[in-house]
Amino acid sequence: MKELSNAHPAKVREYIRRNEWRKPTSGLANGFTQANLVILKKELAFEFLLFCQRNPKPCPVIDVTEPGSPVPQLVAPDADLRTDLPKYRIYRNGELVEEVDNIISYWEDDMVAFLLGCSFTFEKALLDNGIPVRHIECGTNVPMYKTNIPCVKAGRFEGPMVVSMRPIPEKDVVRAVQVTSRFPAVHGAPVHIGNPESIGIQDLQKPDFGNPVPIKDGEVPVFWACGVTPQAVAMQVKPELMITHAPGHMFITNLRDEQFGVL
Amino acid sequence: MKELSNAHPAKVREYIRRNEWRKPTSGLANGFTQANLVILKKELAFEFLLFCQRNPKPCPVIDVTEPGSPVPQLVAPDADLRTDLPKYRIYRNGELVEEVDNIISYWEDDMVAFLLGCSFTFEKALLDNGIPVRHIECGTNVPMYKTNIPCVKAGRFEGPMVVSMRPIPEKDVVRAVQVTSRFPAVHGAPVHIGNPESIGIQDLQKPDFGNPVPIKDGEVPVFWACGVTPQAVAMQVKPELMITHAPGHMFITNLRDEQFGVL
Repeated sequence: MKELSNAHPAKVREYIRRNEWRKPTSGLANGFTQANLVILKKELAFEFLLFCQRNPKPCPVIDVTEPGSPVPQLVAPDADLRTDLPKYRIYRNGELVEEVDNIISYWEDDMVAFLLGCSFTFEKALLDNGIPVRHIECGTNVPMYKTNIPCVKAGRFEGPMVVSMRPIPEKDVVRAVQVTSRFPAVHGAPVHIGNPESIGIQDLQKPDFGNPVPIKDGEVPVFWACGVTPQAVAMQVKPELMITHAPGHMFITNLRDEQFGVL
Repeated sequence: MKELSNAHPAKVREYIRRNEWRKPTSGLANGFTQANLVILKKELAFEFLLFCQRNPKPCPVIDVTEPGSPVPQLVAPDADLRTDLPKYRIYRNGELVEEVDNIISYWEDDMVAFLLGCSFTFEKALLDNGIPVRHIECGTNVPMYKTNIPCVKAGRFEGPMVVSMRPIPEKDVVRAVQVTSRFPAVHGAPVHIGNPESIGIQDLQKPDFGNPVPIKDGEVPVFWACGVTPQAVAMQVKPELMITHAPGHMFITNLRDEQFGVL
Protein backbone atom coordinates (compact mmCIF):
# COMPACT_ATOMS: atom_id res chain seq x y z
CA MET A 1 0.00 0.00 0.00
CA LYS A 2 2.68 2.47 1.00
CA GLU A 3 4.50 1.72 -2.26
CA LEU A 4 1.38 2.55 -4.28
CA SER A 5 0.34 5.62 -2.33
CA ASN A 6 3.00 7.75 -4.01
CA ALA A 7 3.27 5.81 -7.28
CA HIS A 8 2.38 7.18 -10.70
CA PRO A 9 -1.17 6.29 -11.80
CA ALA A 10 0.14 4.10 -14.65
CA LYS A 11 1.93 1.89 -12.14
CA VAL A 12 -1.10 1.66 -9.86
CA ARG A 13 -3.35 0.76 -12.80
CA GLU A 14 -0.86 -1.99 -13.75
CA TYR A 15 -1.24 -3.53 -10.29
CA ILE A 16 -5.00 -3.28 -10.58
CA ARG A 17 -5.03 -4.77 -14.09
CA ARG A 18 -3.06 -7.80 -12.84
CA ASN A 19 -5.57 -8.20 -9.98
CA GLU A 20 -2.84 -7.44 -7.46
CA TRP A 21 -4.93 -4.63 -5.96
CA ARG A 22 -8.62 -5.37 -5.42
CA LYS A 23 -9.49 -2.92 -2.63
CA PRO A 24 -10.77 0.68 -2.61
CA THR A 25 -8.49 3.20 -4.30
CA SER A 26 -8.60 5.96 -1.68
CA GLY A 27 -5.02 6.94 -0.80
CA LEU A 28 -3.42 5.48 -3.96
CA ALA A 29 -1.36 7.67 -6.37
CA ASN A 30 -1.64 10.66 -4.08
CA GLY A 31 -2.26 13.99 -5.80
CA PHE A 32 -3.78 12.37 -8.90
CA THR A 33 -7.46 12.71 -9.72
CA GLN A 34 -9.78 9.72 -9.28
CA ALA A 35 -13.07 9.36 -11.12
CA ASN A 36 -16.49 7.70 -11.05
CA LEU A 37 -17.31 5.42 -13.99
CA VAL A 38 -20.65 5.01 -15.79
CA ILE A 39 -20.86 2.89 -18.96
CA LEU A 40 -23.98 2.95 -21.15
CA LYS A 41 -24.88 1.91 -24.68
CA LYS A 42 -24.54 4.60 -27.35
CA GLU A 43 -28.32 4.74 -27.71
CA LEU A 44 -28.52 6.44 -24.28
CA ALA A 45 -25.24 8.37 -24.49
CA PHE A 46 -26.49 11.67 -25.90
CA GLU A 47 -29.25 11.99 -23.31
CA PHE A 48 -26.90 11.07 -20.48
CA LEU A 49 -24.23 13.53 -21.64
CA LEU A 50 -26.93 16.20 -21.90
CA PHE A 51 -28.09 15.33 -18.38
CA CYS A 52 -24.53 15.78 -17.11
CA GLN A 53 -24.11 19.04 -19.03
CA ARG A 54 -27.32 20.37 -17.44
CA ASN A 55 -26.35 19.20 -13.95
CA PRO A 56 -22.62 19.91 -13.73
CA LYS A 57 -22.46 20.00 -9.94
CA PRO A 58 -23.58 16.38 -9.33
CA CYS A 59 -22.32 15.18 -12.75
CA PRO A 60 -18.95 16.78 -13.52
CA VAL A 61 -17.80 15.12 -16.76
CA ILE A 62 -14.03 14.79 -17.00
CA ASP A 63 -13.84 12.39 -19.97
CA VAL A 64 -16.12 10.49 -22.34
CA THR A 65 -14.82 7.73 -24.63
CA GLU A 66 -15.57 7.37 -28.32
CA PRO A 67 -18.33 4.76 -28.80
CA GLY A 68 -16.72 1.32 -28.63
CA SER A 69 -13.38 2.54 -27.28
CA PRO A 70 -12.43 1.68 -23.67
CA VAL A 71 -9.61 4.27 -23.72
CA PRO A 72 -10.07 7.61 -21.92
CA GLN A 73 -8.00 9.68 -24.38
CA LEU A 74 -8.04 12.93 -22.42
CA VAL A 75 -7.20 11.78 -18.92
CA ALA A 76 -5.26 8.50 -19.39
CA PRO A 77 -4.58 7.53 -23.02
CA ASP A 78 -2.52 4.54 -21.82
CA ALA A 79 -5.35 3.02 -19.77
CA ASP A 80 -8.10 0.49 -20.47
CA LEU A 81 -11.37 1.06 -18.66
CA ARG A 82 -12.28 -2.65 -18.98
CA THR A 83 -9.48 -3.78 -16.67
CA ASP A 84 -8.05 -0.80 -14.79
CA LEU A 85 -10.55 -0.48 -11.95
CA PRO A 86 -10.41 -2.93 -9.03
CA LYS A 87 -14.12 -3.70 -8.96
CA TYR A 88 -17.11 -3.13 -11.25
CA ARG A 89 -20.86 -3.46 -10.85
CA ILE A 90 -23.06 -4.86 -13.61
CA TYR A 91 -26.67 -3.67 -13.72
CA ARG A 92 -29.30 -5.24 -15.99
CA ASN A 93 -32.62 -3.42 -16.35
CA GLY A 94 -31.72 -1.33 -13.30
CA GLU A 95 -30.88 -4.31 -11.04
CA LEU A 96 -27.43 -5.07 -9.66
CA VAL A 97 -26.67 -8.58 -10.92
CA GLU A 98 -22.94 -9.01 -10.36
CA GLU A 99 -19.67 -7.56 -9.08
CA VAL A 100 -16.62 -8.40 -11.20
CA ASP A 101 -12.94 -7.44 -11.35
CA ASN A 102 -12.86 -6.78 -15.09
CA ILE A 103 -15.50 -6.26 -17.75
CA ILE A 104 -13.77 -7.66 -20.83
CA SER A 105 -16.52 -10.20 -21.44
CA TYR A 106 -19.23 -7.53 -20.99
CA TRP A 107 -17.73 -4.92 -23.31
CA GLU A 108 -19.63 -4.26 -26.56
CA ASP A 109 -18.68 -2.11 -29.52
CA ASP A 110 -21.49 0.40 -29.01
CA MET A 111 -20.59 1.24 -25.41
CA VAL A 112 -19.66 4.71 -24.19
CA ALA A 113 -17.79 5.23 -20.91
CA PHE A 114 -18.25 8.37 -18.85
CA LEU A 115 -15.70 9.44 -16.22
CA LEU A 116 -17.13 11.86 -13.67
CA GLY A 117 -15.16 13.87 -11.11
CA CYS A 118 -15.21 12.59 -7.53
CA SER A 119 -15.04 14.19 -4.12
CA PHE A 120 -11.53 12.91 -3.32
CA THR A 121 -10.12 15.95 -5.16
CA PHE A 122 -11.86 18.61 -3.11
CA GLU A 123 -11.43 16.63 0.12
CA LYS A 124 -7.68 16.74 -0.43
CA ALA A 125 -7.96 20.52 -0.91
CA LEU A 126 -9.92 20.79 2.38
CA LEU A 127 -7.30 18.71 4.23
CA ASP A 128 -4.46 20.75 2.68
CA ASN A 129 -6.17 23.83 4.14
CA GLY A 130 -6.33 22.30 7.61
CA ILE A 131 -10.08 21.72 7.43
CA PRO A 132 -11.06 18.36 8.99
CA VAL A 133 -13.00 15.77 6.98
CA ARG A 134 -14.98 13.70 9.49
CA HIS A 135 -15.63 10.46 7.57
CA ILE A 136 -11.93 10.22 6.74
CA GLU A 137 -11.13 10.63 10.45
CA CYS A 138 -13.70 7.91 11.18
CA GLY A 139 -12.46 5.64 8.38
CA THR A 140 -16.02 5.25 7.02
CA ASN A 141 -17.93 6.11 3.84
CA VAL A 142 -19.18 9.70 3.53
CA PRO A 143 -22.88 10.03 4.52
CA MET A 144 -25.10 10.68 1.49
CA TYR A 145 -28.72 11.81 1.32
CA LYS A 146 -31.47 12.07 -1.30
CA THR A 147 -32.71 15.68 -1.35
CA ASN A 148 -35.79 17.52 -2.55
CA ILE A 149 -33.61 19.40 -5.07
CA PRO A 150 -34.66 18.23 -8.56
CA CYS A 151 -31.97 17.75 -11.19
CA VAL A 152 -32.66 19.36 -14.55
CA LYS A 153 -34.29 16.69 -16.74
CA ALA A 154 -32.72 15.53 -20.03
CA GLY A 155 -34.70 13.12 -22.16
CA ARG A 156 -35.38 10.03 -20.06
CA PHE A 157 -32.97 11.03 -17.30
CA GLU A 158 -34.42 12.78 -14.25
CA GLY A 159 -34.48 12.53 -10.47
CA PRO A 160 -33.44 14.21 -7.23
CA MET A 161 -29.92 15.38 -6.45
CA VAL A 162 -27.99 13.22 -3.99
CA VAL A 163 -25.66 15.15 -1.68
CA SER A 164 -22.80 14.22 0.61
CA MET A 165 -22.41 15.91 4.02
CA ARG A 166 -19.30 16.97 5.91
CA PRO A 167 -19.56 18.68 9.33
CA ILE A 168 -17.32 21.78 9.16
CA PRO A 169 -16.20 23.88 12.17
CA GLU A 170 -17.98 27.28 12.08
CA LYS A 171 -14.71 29.16 11.73
CA ASP A 172 -13.80 27.14 8.60
CA VAL A 173 -17.09 27.32 6.69
CA VAL A 174 -16.20 30.36 4.58
CA ARG A 175 -12.79 28.89 3.74
CA ALA A 176 -14.42 25.55 2.84
CA VAL A 177 -16.60 27.40 0.29
CA GLN A 178 -13.58 29.19 -1.16
CA VAL A 179 -11.38 26.11 -1.33
CA THR A 180 -13.96 23.88 -3.03
CA SER A 181 -15.11 26.66 -5.40
CA ARG A 182 -11.69 26.35 -7.06
CA PHE A 183 -12.73 22.90 -8.32
CA PRO A 184 -15.96 23.25 -10.35
CA ALA A 185 -14.90 20.20 -12.42
CA VAL A 186 -15.14 17.94 -9.34
CA HIS A 187 -18.45 18.99 -7.68
CA GLY A 188 -17.15 22.47 -6.72
CA ALA A 189 -18.81 24.72 -4.15
CA PRO A 190 -21.36 23.36 -1.67
CA VAL A 191 -25.04 23.27 -2.69
CA HIS A 192 -26.32 23.94 0.83
CA ILE A 193 -25.05 25.05 4.24
CA GLY A 194 -26.78 24.71 7.58
CA ASN A 195 -30.44 23.60 7.34
CA PRO A 196 -30.82 19.96 6.25
CA GLU A 197 -34.66 20.20 6.52
CA SER A 198 -34.70 22.86 3.78
CA ILE A 199 -33.35 20.39 1.25
CA GLY A 200 -35.58 17.54 2.42
CA ILE A 201 -33.24 15.77 4.85
CA GLN A 202 -35.08 14.76 8.05
CA ASP A 203 -32.36 13.01 10.05
CA LEU A 204 -28.62 13.43 9.47
CA GLN A 205 -28.01 10.24 11.43
CA LYS A 206 -29.96 8.22 8.85
CA PRO A 207 -28.16 8.70 5.51
CA ASP A 208 -29.58 7.04 2.39
CA PHE A 209 -26.10 5.80 1.41
CA GLY A 210 -22.78 5.55 3.30
CA ASN A 211 -22.43 5.84 7.07
CA PRO A 212 -23.55 8.48 9.60
CA VAL A 213 -20.82 10.63 11.20
CA PRO A 214 -20.83 12.55 14.50
CA ILE A 215 -21.43 16.31 14.34
CA LYS A 216 -19.66 18.16 17.15
CA ASP A 217 -20.70 21.34 18.96
CA GLY A 218 -19.81 24.38 16.88
CA GLU A 219 -19.87 22.48 13.60
CA VAL A 220 -22.19 23.22 10.69
CA PRO A 221 -23.40 20.53 8.25
CA VAL A 222 -22.21 21.44 4.74
CA PHE A 223 -23.63 19.65 1.68
CA TRP A 224 -21.98 19.00 -1.67
CA ALA A 225 -23.56 17.57 -4.84
CA CYS A 226 -22.61 13.89 -5.00
CA GLY A 227 -21.45 11.63 -7.82
CA VAL A 228 -23.97 9.00 -6.78
CA THR A 229 -26.62 11.22 -8.42
CA PRO A 230 -25.93 10.23 -12.06
CA GLN A 231 -25.82 6.51 -11.19
CA ALA A 232 -29.09 6.77 -9.28
CA VAL A 233 -30.71 8.67 -12.13
CA ALA A 234 -29.38 6.30 -14.80
CA MET A 235 -30.63 3.34 -12.80
CA GLN A 236 -34.19 4.69 -12.81
CA VAL A 237 -34.19 4.53 -16.62
CA LYS A 238 -33.52 0.78 -16.20
CA PRO A 239 -31.10 0.52 -19.12
CA GLU A 240 -30.74 -2.99 -20.51
CA LEU A 241 -27.07 -2.92 -19.47
CA MET A 242 -25.20 -0.40 -17.34
CA ILE A 243 -21.76 -0.84 -15.80
CA THR A 244 -20.29 1.31 -13.02
CA HIS A 245 -17.32 1.21 -10.65
CA ALA A 246 -18.03 -0.43 -7.29
CA PRO A 247 -18.28 2.23 -4.53
CA GLY A 248 -14.82 3.44 -3.55
CA HIS A 249 -13.13 1.43 -6.32
CA MET A 250 -12.44 4.35 -8.63
CA PHE A 251 -10.53 4.96 -11.85
CA ILE A 252 -7.22 6.77 -11.31
CA THR A 253 -6.44 9.31 -14.06
CA ASN A 254 -3.07 10.72 -15.15
CA LEU A 255 -4.16 14.25 -14.23
CA ARG A 256 -3.18 15.94 -11.02
CA ASP A 257 -5.88 17.33 -8.72
CA GLU A 258 -4.36 20.80 -8.98
CA GLN A 259 -4.89 20.79 -12.77
CA PHE A 260 -8.62 21.05 -12.07
CA GLY A 261 -8.22 24.23 -10.02
CA VAL A 262 -9.53 27.46 -11.55
CA LEU A 263 -7.03 30.13 -10.51
CA MET B 1 -31.81 51.55 -29.31
CA LYS B 2 -31.41 53.40 -26.04
CA GLU B 3 -34.74 51.98 -24.94
CA LEU B 4 -33.54 48.43 -25.62
CA SER B 5 -30.06 48.79 -24.16
CA ASN B 6 -31.38 48.56 -20.62
CA ALA B 7 -34.49 46.48 -21.33
CA HIS B 8 -35.12 42.96 -20.03
CA PRO B 9 -34.14 40.24 -22.51
CA ALA B 10 -37.77 39.14 -22.90
CA LYS B 11 -38.68 42.62 -24.18
CA VAL B 12 -35.73 42.74 -26.58
CA ARG B 13 -36.59 39.29 -27.94
CA GLU B 14 -40.17 40.48 -28.52
CA TYR B 15 -38.86 43.32 -30.70
CA ILE B 16 -36.65 40.89 -32.57
CA ARG B 17 -39.49 38.36 -33.02
CA ARG B 18 -41.68 41.07 -34.57
CA ASN B 19 -38.80 41.99 -36.93
CA GLU B 20 -38.55 45.41 -35.30
CA TRP B 21 -34.84 44.87 -34.57
CA ARG B 22 -32.76 43.34 -37.38
CA LYS B 23 -29.27 44.59 -36.50
CA PRO B 24 -26.44 43.17 -34.35
CA THR B 25 -27.32 42.63 -30.69
CA SER B 26 -24.20 44.13 -29.10
CA GLY B 27 -25.26 46.71 -26.50
CA LEU B 28 -28.82 45.37 -26.08
CA ALA B 29 -30.16 44.20 -22.67
CA ASN B 30 -26.98 45.29 -20.93
CA GLY B 31 -25.70 42.92 -18.27
CA PHE B 32 -27.47 39.88 -19.75
CA THR B 33 -25.55 37.05 -21.40
CA GLN B 34 -25.63 36.67 -25.18
CA ALA B 35 -24.91 33.38 -26.92
CA ASN B 36 -23.79 31.81 -30.20
CA LEU B 37 -26.27 29.43 -31.86
CA VAL B 38 -25.53 26.17 -33.69
CA ILE B 39 -28.40 23.91 -34.82
CA LEU B 40 -27.75 20.39 -36.06
CA LYS B 41 -29.80 17.25 -36.67
CA LYS B 42 -29.98 14.79 -33.77
CA GLU B 43 -27.86 12.32 -35.72
CA LEU B 44 -24.82 14.60 -35.20
CA ALA B 45 -25.80 15.96 -31.77
CA PHE B 46 -23.95 13.47 -29.55
CA GLU B 47 -20.65 13.90 -31.41
CA PHE B 48 -20.99 17.68 -31.41
CA LEU B 49 -21.83 17.81 -27.69
CA LEU B 50 -18.85 15.53 -27.05
CA PHE B 51 -16.64 17.86 -29.12
CA CYS B 52 -17.81 20.81 -27.03
CA GLN B 53 -17.28 18.88 -23.80
CA ARG B 54 -13.71 18.07 -24.87
CA ASN B 55 -12.98 21.63 -25.98
CA PRO B 56 -14.67 23.79 -23.35
CA LYS B 57 -12.57 26.90 -23.99
CA PRO B 58 -13.63 27.44 -27.64
CA CYS B 59 -17.00 25.66 -27.17
CA PRO B 60 -18.51 26.67 -23.82
CA VAL B 61 -21.99 25.07 -23.81
CA ILE B 62 -24.56 27.08 -21.90
CA ASP B 63 -27.71 25.29 -23.07
CA VAL B 64 -28.79 22.46 -25.38
CA THR B 65 -32.42 21.90 -26.35
CA GLU B 66 -34.28 18.61 -26.29
CA PRO B 67 -34.39 17.15 -29.83
CA GLY B 68 -37.23 18.87 -31.68
CA SER B 69 -37.75 21.62 -29.12
CA PRO B 70 -36.76 25.20 -30.03
CA VAL B 71 -37.01 26.29 -26.37
CA PRO B 72 -33.80 26.80 -24.35
CA GLN B 73 -35.24 25.63 -21.01
CA LEU B 74 -32.25 26.54 -18.86
CA VAL B 75 -31.42 30.04 -20.04
CA ALA B 76 -34.71 31.42 -21.46
CA PRO B 77 -37.73 29.10 -21.07
CA ASP B 78 -39.99 31.82 -22.54
CA ALA B 79 -38.02 32.10 -25.79
CA ASP B 80 -38.22 30.46 -29.22
CA LEU B 81 -34.91 29.94 -31.00
CA ARG B 82 -36.68 29.88 -34.39
CA THR B 83 -37.69 33.54 -34.20
CA ASP B 84 -35.79 35.30 -31.42
CA LEU B 85 -32.50 36.07 -33.18
CA PRO B 86 -32.34 38.94 -35.67
CA LYS B 87 -30.53 37.03 -38.40
CA TYR B 88 -29.72 33.37 -39.14
CA ARG B 89 -27.45 31.62 -41.60
CA ILE B 90 -28.51 28.43 -43.38
CA TYR B 91 -25.73 26.04 -44.45
CA ARG B 92 -26.34 23.06 -46.71
CA ASN B 93 -23.54 20.52 -47.05
CA GLY B 94 -21.15 23.06 -45.53
CA GLU B 95 -22.06 25.91 -47.90
CA LEU B 96 -23.79 29.13 -46.84
CA VAL B 97 -26.96 29.24 -48.94
CA GLU B 98 -29.11 31.88 -47.31
CA GLU B 99 -29.51 34.51 -44.57
CA VAL B 100 -33.01 34.72 -43.06
CA ASP B 101 -34.74 36.53 -40.21
CA ASN B 102 -36.51 33.47 -38.84
CA ILE B 103 -36.16 29.72 -39.34
CA ILE B 104 -39.73 28.55 -38.83
CA SER B 105 -39.87 26.97 -42.29
CA TYR B 106 -36.48 25.26 -41.77
CA TRP B 107 -37.19 23.76 -38.36
CA GLU B 108 -37.52 19.96 -38.21
CA ASP B 109 -38.53 17.72 -35.36
CA ASP B 110 -35.13 16.04 -35.04
CA MET B 111 -33.16 19.26 -34.62
CA VAL B 112 -31.02 20.08 -31.59
CA ALA B 113 -30.00 23.66 -30.81
CA PHE B 114 -26.75 24.44 -29.00
CA LEU B 115 -26.19 27.80 -27.27
CA LEU B 116 -22.51 28.55 -26.68
CA GLY B 117 -21.08 31.33 -24.53
CA CYS B 118 -19.77 34.41 -26.33
CA SER B 119 -17.01 36.92 -25.68
CA PHE B 120 -19.37 39.81 -24.89
CA THR B 121 -19.52 38.56 -21.28
CA PHE B 122 -15.80 38.68 -20.57
CA GLU B 123 -15.36 41.88 -22.60
CA LYS B 124 -17.83 43.58 -20.28
CA ALA B 125 -15.77 42.31 -17.32
CA LEU B 126 -12.59 43.75 -18.89
CA LEU B 127 -14.29 47.14 -19.47
CA ASP B 128 -15.71 47.12 -15.92
CA ASN B 129 -12.11 46.72 -14.73
CA GLY B 130 -10.91 49.69 -16.77
CA ILE B 131 -9.12 47.51 -19.32
CA PRO B 132 -9.57 48.83 -22.88
CA VAL B 133 -11.04 46.60 -25.61
CA ARG B 134 -9.62 47.87 -28.90
CA HIS B 135 -12.19 46.59 -31.45
CA ILE B 136 -14.99 48.10 -29.36
CA GLU B 137 -13.14 51.44 -29.38
CA CYS B 138 -12.75 51.07 -33.16
CA GLY B 139 -16.37 49.99 -33.67
CA THR B 140 -15.25 46.96 -35.70
CA ASN B 141 -15.41 43.16 -35.42
CA VAL B 142 -12.80 41.50 -33.20
CA PRO B 143 -9.86 40.10 -35.24
CA MET B 144 -9.89 36.29 -35.33
CA TYR B 145 -7.18 33.86 -36.44
CA LYS B 146 -6.88 30.16 -37.24
CA THR B 147 -4.11 28.72 -35.05
CA ASN B 148 -1.90 25.63 -35.06
CA ILE B 149 -3.54 24.50 -31.80
CA PRO B 150 -5.56 21.37 -32.58
CA CYS B 151 -8.91 20.89 -30.90
CA VAL B 152 -9.48 17.50 -29.29
CA LYS B 153 -11.27 15.33 -31.88
CA ALA B 154 -14.72 13.84 -31.22
CA GLY B 155 -16.14 11.48 -33.82
CA ARG B 156 -16.31 13.36 -37.12
CA PHE B 157 -15.60 16.74 -35.53
CA GLU B 158 -12.02 18.00 -35.60
CA GLY B 159 -9.97 21.02 -36.62
CA PRO B 160 -7.82 23.89 -35.37
CA MET B 161 -8.81 26.29 -32.63
CA VAL B 162 -9.80 29.78 -33.78
CA VAL B 163 -8.78 32.58 -31.42
CA SER B 164 -9.70 36.23 -31.03
CA MET B 165 -7.05 38.83 -30.19
CA ARG B 166 -7.22 41.92 -27.99
CA PRO B 167 -4.15 44.16 -27.49
CA ILE B 168 -3.80 44.72 -23.73
CA PRO B 169 -1.58 47.35 -22.03
CA GLU B 170 1.38 45.60 -20.32
CA LYS B 171 0.29 46.83 -16.89
CA ASP B 172 -3.16 45.25 -17.34
CA VAL B 173 -2.18 41.80 -18.65
CA VAL B 174 -2.17 40.04 -15.27
CA ARG B 175 -5.50 41.62 -14.34
CA ALA B 176 -6.95 40.62 -17.73
CA VAL B 177 -6.04 36.99 -16.96
CA GLN B 178 -7.62 37.20 -13.51
CA VAL B 179 -10.79 38.93 -14.69
CA THR B 180 -11.50 36.54 -17.57
CA SER B 181 -10.56 33.45 -15.51
CA ARG B 182 -13.71 34.14 -13.48
CA PHE B 183 -15.79 33.21 -16.53
CA PRO B 184 -14.83 29.67 -17.64
CA ALA B 185 -18.36 29.21 -19.06
CA VAL B 186 -17.78 31.96 -21.64
CA HIS B 187 -14.27 31.20 -23.01
CA GLY B 188 -12.52 32.04 -19.72
CA ALA B 189 -8.79 32.70 -19.40
CA PRO B 190 -6.62 33.47 -22.44
CA VAL B 191 -5.08 30.57 -24.37
CA HIS B 192 -1.93 32.51 -25.30
CA ILE B 193 -0.13 35.74 -24.42
CA GLY B 194 2.58 37.48 -26.40
CA ASN B 195 3.97 35.41 -29.30
CA PRO B 196 1.52 35.02 -32.19
CA GLU B 197 4.09 33.00 -34.22
CA SER B 198 4.11 30.28 -31.56
CA ILE B 199 0.45 29.51 -32.21
CA GLY B 200 0.80 29.72 -35.99
CA ILE B 201 -0.23 33.34 -36.60
CA GLN B 202 2.09 35.03 -39.13
CA ASP B 203 0.60 38.53 -39.40
CA LEU B 204 -1.71 40.11 -36.84
CA GLN B 205 -2.79 42.64 -39.43
CA LYS B 206 -4.26 39.86 -41.60
CA PRO B 207 -6.91 38.12 -39.50
CA ASP B 208 -8.79 35.15 -40.96
CA PHE B 209 -12.13 36.60 -39.76
CA GLY B 210 -13.17 40.05 -38.51
CA ASN B 211 -11.07 43.21 -38.87
CA PRO B 212 -7.47 44.08 -37.93
CA VAL B 213 -6.95 46.50 -35.04
CA PRO B 214 -3.98 48.75 -34.21
CA ILE B 215 -1.56 47.55 -31.50
CA LYS B 216 0.01 50.45 -29.62
CA ASP B 217 3.48 50.68 -28.04
CA GLY B 218 3.50 48.96 -24.67
CA GLU B 219 0.61 46.66 -25.55
CA VAL B 220 0.77 42.87 -25.65
CA PRO B 221 -1.44 40.76 -27.96
CA VAL B 222 -3.59 38.46 -25.82
CA PHE B 223 -5.50 35.56 -27.40
CA TRP B 224 -8.76 33.96 -26.27
CA ALA B 225 -10.43 30.82 -27.63
CA CYS B 226 -13.19 31.92 -30.00
CA GLY B 227 -16.77 30.78 -30.54
CA VAL B 228 -16.17 30.68 -34.29
CA THR B 229 -14.27 27.42 -33.67
CA PRO B 230 -17.30 25.10 -33.30
CA GLN B 231 -19.00 26.59 -36.38
CA ALA B 232 -15.82 26.19 -38.43
CA VAL B 233 -15.38 22.62 -37.24
CA ALA B 234 -19.05 21.69 -37.81
CA MET B 235 -18.85 23.17 -41.30
CA GLN B 236 -15.98 20.85 -42.22
CA VAL B 237 -18.22 17.85 -41.52
CA LYS B 238 -20.52 19.29 -44.25
CA PRO B 239 -23.77 18.40 -42.49
CA GLU B 240 -26.76 18.18 -44.79
CA LEU B 241 -28.31 21.09 -42.88
CA MET B 242 -26.79 23.38 -40.25
CA ILE B 243 -28.22 26.65 -38.97
CA THR B 244 -26.30 29.30 -37.01
CA HIS B 245 -26.77 32.91 -35.94
CA ALA B 246 -25.37 35.49 -38.35
CA PRO B 247 -22.16 37.03 -36.94
CA GLY B 248 -22.97 39.59 -34.24
CA HIS B 249 -26.69 38.71 -34.31
CA MET B 250 -26.74 36.70 -31.10
CA PHE B 251 -29.35 35.10 -28.86
CA ILE B 252 -29.98 37.08 -25.66
CA THR B 253 -30.54 34.85 -22.61
CA ASN B 254 -32.37 35.63 -19.35
CA LEU B 255 -29.17 35.05 -17.35
CA ARG B 256 -26.97 37.85 -16.13
CA ASP B 257 -23.28 37.87 -17.04
CA GLU B 258 -22.35 37.87 -13.36
CA GLN B 259 -24.18 34.56 -12.87
CA PHE B 260 -21.41 32.92 -14.91
CA GLY B 261 -18.67 34.17 -12.59
CA VAL B 262 -16.91 31.56 -10.42
CA LEU B 263 -16.32 33.31 -7.12
